[in-house]
This record gives sequence, C-alpha cells and structure tokens, in this order.
Amino acid sequence: MITMTSSPSYLSLAISMLIISLCSSNLFDYYVTKWSSVRAAEAVAAIIPCSGHGRAYLEYGLVLNGHEPVCECNPCYSGSDCSKFSSDCAADAGSGDPYFMEPFWMRHAASSAVVVSGWYRMGYTYNDESYISQLLVNHIKKLHETVGNAVTDGKYIIFGGGSTQLLNAAVYALSSNNNSSDTPAKVVATAPYYPLYRTQTELFNSRDYRYEGDASLWKNNTDIDTTFIEFVTSPTNPEGKLTNAVLEGPNVKSINDRAYYWPHFTPLPSPADDDLMLFTISKFTGHAGTRFGWAIIKDKGVYEKMVTYLDLTTVGVSREAQLRTLKILNVILEEGDAKEIFQFGYSTMRDRWIRLKQIISKSKRFSLQKLSPQYCTFFKTVRDPSPAYAWLKCEREEDKNCYEILKAAGINGHEGSMYSGDDRYVRLSLIRSQDDFDILINKLTNFVAKE
Amino acid sequence: MITMTSSPSYLSLAISMLIISLCSSNLFDYYVTKWSSVRAAEAVAAIIPCSGHGRAYLEYGLVLNGHEPVCECNPCYSGSDCSKFSSDCAADAGSGDPYFMEPFWMRHAASSAVVVSGWYRMGYTYNDESYISQLLVNHIKKLHETVGNAVTDGKYIIFGGGSTQLLNAAVYALSSNNNSSDTPAKVVATAPYYPLYRTQTELFNSRDYRYEGDASLWKNNTDIDTTFIEFVTSPTNPEGKLTNAVLEGPNVKSINDRAYYWPHFTPLPSPADDDLMLFTISKFTGHAGTRFGWAIIKDKGVYEKMVTYLDLTTVGVSREAQLRTLKILNVILEEGDAKEIFQFGYSTMRDRWIRLKQIISKSKRFSLQKLSPQYCTFFKTVRDPSPAYAWLKCEREEDKNCYEILKAAGINGHEGSMYSGDDRYVRLSLIRSQDDFDILINKLTNFVAKE
Repeated sequence: MITMTSSPSYLSLAISMLIISLCSSNLFDYYVTKWSSVRAAEAVAAIIPCSGHGRAYLEYGLVLNGHEPVCECNPCYSGSDCSKFSSDCAADAGSGDPYFMEPFWMRHAASSAVVVSGWYRMGYTYNDESYISQLLVNHIKKLHETVGNAVTDGKYIIFGGGSTQLLNAAVYALSSNNNSSDTPAKVVATAPYYPLYRTQTELFNSRDYRYEGDASLWKNNTDIDTTFIEFVTSPTNPEGKLTNAVLEGPNVKSINDRAYYWPHFTPLPSPADDDLMLFTISKFTGHAGTRFGWAIIKDKGVYEKMVTYLDLTTVGVSREAQLRTLKILNVILEEGDAKEIFQFGYSTMRDRWIRLKQIISKSKRFSLQKLSPQYCTFFKTVRDPSPAYAWLKCEREEDKNCYEILKAAGINGHEGSMYSGDDRYVRLSLIRSQDDFDILINKLTNFVAKE
Repeated sequence: MITMTSSPSYLSLAISMLIISLCSSNLFDYYVTKWSSVRAAEAVAAIIPCSGHGRAYLEYGLVLNGHEPVCECNPCYSGSDCSKFSSDCAADAGSGDPYFMEPFWMRHAASSAVVVSGWYRMGYTYNDESYISQLLVNHIKKLHETVGNAVTDGKYIIFGGGSTQLLNAAVYALSSNNNSSDTPAKVVATAPYYPLYRTQTELFNSRDYRYEGDASLWKNNTDIDTTFIEFVTSPTNPEGKLTNAVLEGPNVKSINDRAYYWPHFTPLPSPADDDLMLFTISKFTGHAGTRFGWAIIKDKGVYEKMVTYLDLTTVGVSREAQLRTLKILNVILEEGDAKEIFQFGYSTMRDRWIRLKQIISKSKRFSLQKLSPQYCTFFKTVRDPSPAYAWLKCEREEDKNCYEILKAAGINGHEGSMYSGDDRYVRLSLIRSQDDFDILINKLTNFVAKE
C-alpha cells in the first residue's frame, strides 16, 4: 500500500528503514495510527464534494473531534451540500478573492500538503537568528529567474503579512530618511488606483509622510526639499495595463506594486528591475488567506529599515505561512519549470476575458478597457489579454453611477470612486470562483439582451 | 496497521468506509501514497534525535525533495547531529524564546499535528466574511473559562500577528477618539517595562499619540484635555509581579498586557476583567513562531477600530496560524481540562526558579526579585513562585553595569536599561530550552563559587 517516491541517500535510507520496520516499531506505529486519522480525515475533506459549489475545510470535524464536516458554499449556493441554487441572488464580482486558482491546487492536493506537528518551530527565529527563512528566499529567487518577471541579483528580500504589510513598511523606510526638512514626504499614486495606498497611509497619520492624492498633480513640482513616494502598480489594478512612474527627479522614490506581474494576467515584456518591488502569493498562486508577500529591495539602508519595521510590528511573518509558501513554490518549480500553473492561470483568465468581451461587444451601454495582444517572454509568443479585473464603463450620459445601474441588475462590483476614479466605472473581479464568474456572465448577458 | 480513534456518526462512517475500501479506492490510494511520504518524512524528523540538543524541521529534506534533514542545534552545541558541546560558549539567557514548552509538544507531536493541503482556505475570509475564525474565538473563550484567567462574557475578541501587532492596534484605537484637542495622546508605562511599548510607539511617529515615558511622572496630572494610554503588564516583564494601572481618571485608558497571566508563571488570584486585554500563545503554549495573539475588548467602538487596523495593515492573521492555534488549543482542552499543560509548564518553571534561587542565595554579589507563594484559583492551592524571567541585581557599589559583569563571566542577559530600568539589573530568560537553562546554571554556579 505505501510506496515512496525516490529520495536521496540518508533520508531515503531512514524512510526505508521505517517502512521495513512498520509492524515492529512502536514509535512509528504510534505516528501511523495518530497521523492516519489526520490524513484520512483530510482525504474525507477532499472527497466531500459539496456538490462542486463549496468546500469542507478540515477544521470542522477533522481537526476537532466531535464536529461534523461543514460545507462552506460559494455565493448563491446553499444547503448542507451546497446543492441549492438561488437565481435571485446577486452576482458577486466585488472582492479579489482568487478562487480561480483553486482547481489547480485541488488537483495538486496531496503533493502540496504539509504536515505541521505540534513542536514545529516554536522559537522566534530561524537558525540564522532572523525571522525570514533563507530557504524560502532562495526559492523566491529561483522562481523569479524561472518566470523572468523580476531581477533579484544583488538585491535583498524580506517578507510581510501579504504585500499589504509591506506597503507601509516601504513608506516608512522611504520617508524616514527625509531629514532635509520638516516637511512630511508626499505619498501619491495615479488614479484609478488600489484604495489601500490611501487608506493605509491615512490610517497611520504619521508625522513623516502624508497622502497627497494623484501623482499627476505634482508633475511640475520644483520643491526639492520634499520627498515624494509614488505607488506604481504594473499591471494596474483595476485596468490591467503596464505602467511606469509619473514623477521623476532626485527626491522621488517609488514603490512598485507587482502583485499582478505574472503570466496569468499580463504579457511579460522583460524582468522588472525597480529599486523596490512588492509581490504577493495572493494573486500569483491564489493563496490570499496565507497572508504572505515579499519585497525585493536594491538599497541596503531601505532593506534594513523595512526589516526593523517588520520586526517591531509583528516580529515577522507566521512560520506556518512561510512553510506553506515554501511547499507551494516547490510544487510550482518542480512541475515543468512553473509552466503548468501559468498555463492553467492564463488559459482560465483569457477564457473569462473572451467571454466577457463577447457580451459587452453586443452592448452600447457598456464598454471595457482596451487591451491588446502582446509578446510575452515567458510564453515566448504573442498572447491575448487576460486581466484580473474588468474596468467597465457606463456609456450613457444619464448613467452617472454605474455601480447602482449594475446593482439594480443583480451585479455587485466595486464603485469607480473606490479607486479614486470616476463613478461611471465599476471594477468587476474576474479572479473569483468559476461559479461567481458564471453567475456574473449570466446576469450580464440578460441585462445586455434587454437594452 | 491503521486504527482509528472513535469519531461521531457521519465522519466516523466516512472514515471507516475509506479504511474498508483502502485497496480498492484509487483516490484514497493516491492520498495514502502521496501523504505517506509527507507523514513518514515527518516521523523521520521526529525520530532524528539531533543528540537531544537540536531539532530537524521538516522543510529540509522532507518538504523539499533532494535535501537532507539538517539538525538545528541549541546554543553551544554543534556538529551535524548537535553532539559537540563547547564549554567556552556563553550562556544564552537573552531573548524569551519559549522552548521550555517544546518537550510537551514533542510528547504530543502526533495529536497536535495538522495537515494543510494545497487548496486550504485560499480566499481572504471565513464564511462569515470576516478574517477571524469564529471556531477559534469560541475555543479561546472556552480556554479562558477553563483556566479562569480572563472574563470574556459579552466581550469582543480579535486576532493579531502575535500580541505585538495588537499593541499598536490598541494604541491606534484608543487614541483616534482623541478629538477633544490637538494634543496627541500620551502613551506611558511603569519601568521596568517591555521595551516594545516604547520602540513600537516611536516607530509609527503618529500625530495621534506620542510615547511619554514613565507612567508615575503623570500621576498628579490635571490636564483633562489629554488622553493617557497606559500599558499595564501583569505579571510584569521582567519582574513577574502582579500589578495594576498607576494612572486613573476619565481621560486614562489602559492596555492590559496579559502575556504571562497563565498558571505556568503566576498564581491566578481571579479572572482578569479589564477593558482591553492582550494575550499571546507565544508564552502560553510556547509557539512564538506562529505569531498569534488575541485581544479581549469590552467597548464595541474600540473593537471596531482595532478590526479596521488589522484589516488595513495585514488583512488579518495568516489562516494557517489560526488553524494551528485551533488545533493546539483543542489538544490542551481535550487533555483533562488543560491541567496537563499547566502542570508541565508550572513544574518546569518552578524547578528552574528553585535551582536559580539556591545558587543566588549563596552569593553576596547578586540578588533576585522577591516573590512569595500565593493561592492560585487554577491549582486550588498555594503555589510557589515560577517567573518567566529573573531580574538579577548586582549589589556591589562598583558593579554599575551588571550586564557587563555577567557577560565577562560568559552569561548573556538583557541590560536593565533595555527595560528602562537601572543597569544594576539584568534580565535573565528562564523560558528557553533546558540546555540553555542548564548552561546558565552552570556558569552562574562557577561564578558565585569564585566570590
């Protein structure tokens, strides 16, 4: 029954000896007995199908004795096995929950699993006294080299609780050098932009920096005493376009948010080589709940300040999240040079974009952002657009609030103004579950048919 | 070979069916085959003894194919199996790495293990749309009720990346109400205190609050327009004494850090019932690397502000850390009403304190903080002191820097001034591994013998 994959020398020998002594070793019997229940229970979780419209996670009935497995259903589905569909229910195209990758990981459920025992890494630090797994740093470097989306040579890498935590860590590091005057650094971005740049910067209400709105307002700035920190997202959220910083000059620093710079979402013209780049596994592998992001930093002083920030605010990132990310990246890298995950992700996102475009092409009331096919260095071919979000515009003069128009038709997106854009626009998330996308397409099709 | 623990109805049936169909089900065979390697590898990690002076974690050679297991050795031990001891090596009594609990979790390695598969909780939220597992909230409430160290009835509970993240979340929440004037809230604590209260508050350099040193300086304050936020640690770090807030009045708010309010470290006179209490599993179960803490909050407005803070800074706590904490608490609660872990923790810490006291009682050069036996509502008996740290004083007039005196004798502690105390004091951590404690005792014994 138990067959082992090939393993090297010592480990192989050790495992083989364990297998051979299966029935005679009390210790191993103990582990097998105990862990069989964990494993079998997890297998049950994988097998409970929740009608294909939900999932049973292991904490119910599996980790905890005495509880039965509970299906958590996708929006619009209900019942103990998620089999009841409600057609009255609104399409959820709001948040960027990246369930589009779930089928890939379901397929790799076993190879991507980690067992975390009770005594795993109880101390604060790894054996180099840091809060950052060097093995994981090495995997991240190998990943970027394989994908060709970022230059890491000679740069520093740190981890955060998602790229979310790293946004402010970067603002802190770039503004705290600001000793040329008492003026706080001005934090800016080009609209439409990810709302957290503003809300997070305002939350901290720091003496060292202040949110100052749209980057373009400061294009002709001649104040050399003020530091500017520009958030640059490329591809942009929501539009999915490759961009560059708007401001330039010796007092301008940029934070390059590369959350979507993966072959799923965009062609890769060349590896990004900015001074400070942020990545997250949320949109890359779909593990939003893991809260794991990383920064690639050129300047040693900025790196050290960001390390201080991470140490003093959370003492680094949960070691379980680091372990799981390590395993996930390992699976990706071992499966044909990361080709499998990007082929899955790209084909999913491209197909969704094509379906959406077909519907909107029949409408005079709505339009979508324009994206063109481009050459991608990863796929080594010209590839179609496959953005994470639709930036839908209401074209009629009277449709000033596009969010309300769509909401009335049973489609929940995000208001344009949430992204500091015009409320003639709505962001529709295309990276949610297949169910969510199908419901969205269905509602949109009906709505356009009624024009 | 595979025996199952008793499980209820549906789950039990489902698992039994799986076991019965072991050889006929391809799906289960697949899981068994794949997961056997993960499990067996983990068993190897548990079996590789590293000579009892280190540990081999699963990421080396186990999660990642092609790597061999690597022993990470305790301080002063080295070699591929941690068998080489260096007597020249200084005793590490610095950081509060809580390895004192590791033997407990080694003993419960299997029952406390969780399997996290690749598709586990990929979205941002639990099914109530929050970033907080309600199942874990319920376990935490049950835990406090069982232990009797905190009142949770009618209160709100949120999670942070260790209590570390919650310190500033609380300062943010308590100061942002401060609209009576433009004066920033004054953040204070009573020395000697945990250094992060100051360093973290200063790091954020907020317009809303400012660190203002020792609480006692503001005792006779009559400024009713200024909000005071007092950090109250009970038992204190470093002294291990039960305390209360120093300041009082309508404009005084306190953050009660209860990291050490567990039967390991202190008698429990009664359940704590403060407005805002912080706990962490770091010092309770010893899982410092998990980065998991929680706040128990009375006021709904404060709770909501802390939720906003957590959402905007890290989008909550890693779901893997929440899952692991859930499993750990479940093991504790299932093992005889949490008696086993506290008996282990208390007897370890009490024995260490007794050994330390015996040595210091022979010295005229050093003294320890005074702690008395007290009645504990958890153990229902008078119990001996068992603090997490020794607050060692150098008594000779000329020994103005106790840290340097000890360092010269091969003992590394933390300077008194790090805790805003006198440098005649040194904090010695007593919660590290048994090896670290034994080396400390050995060095101290030799040093005292030479007086």
